[in-house]
Amino acid sequence: MTQKAFQDYYPDEFSHCYGCGRLNEKGLQIKSYWEGEEAVARFLPGDHHTATPGFVYGGMIASLIDCHSTGTASAAAYRKEGRTMDTDPLRFVTAALKVDYLAPTPLGVELELRSKVMEIKEKKVVIETRVLADNKTCATGNVVAVRMPETMMTKTTQR
Amino acid sequence: MTQKAFQDYYPDEFSHCYGCGRLNEKGLQIKSYWEGEEAVARFLPGDHHTATPGFVYGGMIASLIDCHSTGTASAAAYRKEGRTMDTDPLRFVTAALKVDYLAPTPLGVELELRSKVMEIKEKKVVIETRVLADNKTCATGNVVAVRMPETMMTKTTQR
Repeated sequence: MTQKAFQDYYPDEFSHCYGCGRLNEKGLQIKSYWEGEEAVARFLPGDHHTATPGFVYGGMIASLIDCHSTGTASAAAYRKEGRTMDTDPLRFVTAALKVDYLAPTPLGVELELRSKVMEIKEKKVVIETRVLADNKTCATGNVVAVRMPETMMTKTTQR
Repeated sequence: MTQKAFQDYYPDEFSHCYGCGRLNEKGLQIKSYWEGEEAVARFLPGDHHTATPGFVYGGMIASLIDCHSTGTASAAAYRKEGRTMDTDPLRFVTAALKVDYLAPTPLGVELELRSKVMEIKEKKVVIETRVLADNKTCATGNVVAVRMPETMMTKTTQR
């Protein structure tokens, strides 16, 4: 049986995100999974996701960290509440995103994001991420994720 | 005569960036201009650049801030050296990117990025940016841009 990604559990109305929505055909469709205490996502950027030739552009790296982190925040919140991700939605959005670009990230290799939950409260989760290419850390991310505000829920079909 | 954008001066080998390269047909092709002491870019996200329906996804906002800031760093460095952007390349890359998402950013309106140069040294420029939608600040950005390292230059055709 194939393990479902965090994002595969999102209700349809939360599945249109360009970064991680499984229903956004033009999007990146990032998928995140637990591997022990770390949440892991793997992604192969396209040739057009370039900075200078041969390297991945920084906005892509920020996008991967962003969506992988909010997904991880959600998964961690479910886990803390002791319930599975197919129960009532528990969605997080990014309040603050910090990316440190440590080395140019090579294009043409699958990137690996490995995240840890550094802090978890009811309405706030802090996630730290390493972005690796060929097992080398090229960037690190810190995301403060907060429970999705009502103002963003109003335009979606709540269930 | 139409004003050229910062990015229009980049040599061809630096014009493939997904965010701001004028030669990347699949990219965002961000354009930045001086308006007095502020550098300004305007961008209309596509319908597919969504977070939840009706709002712009965070990775897009980070991408816009990223490329607009490195372009602004470059333009500011030329200005400081008292030369025009059609002279020898003076390229910057992002060392650190911080985005604070203050309010959900509505989709369907042109976003405006307004940036100020907070610090400028030979190899480091710090840029602060406001991202506005309908004249309301939805996000702020802080970018530490550094002169492009040799390791990124080697894969490009230097002139």
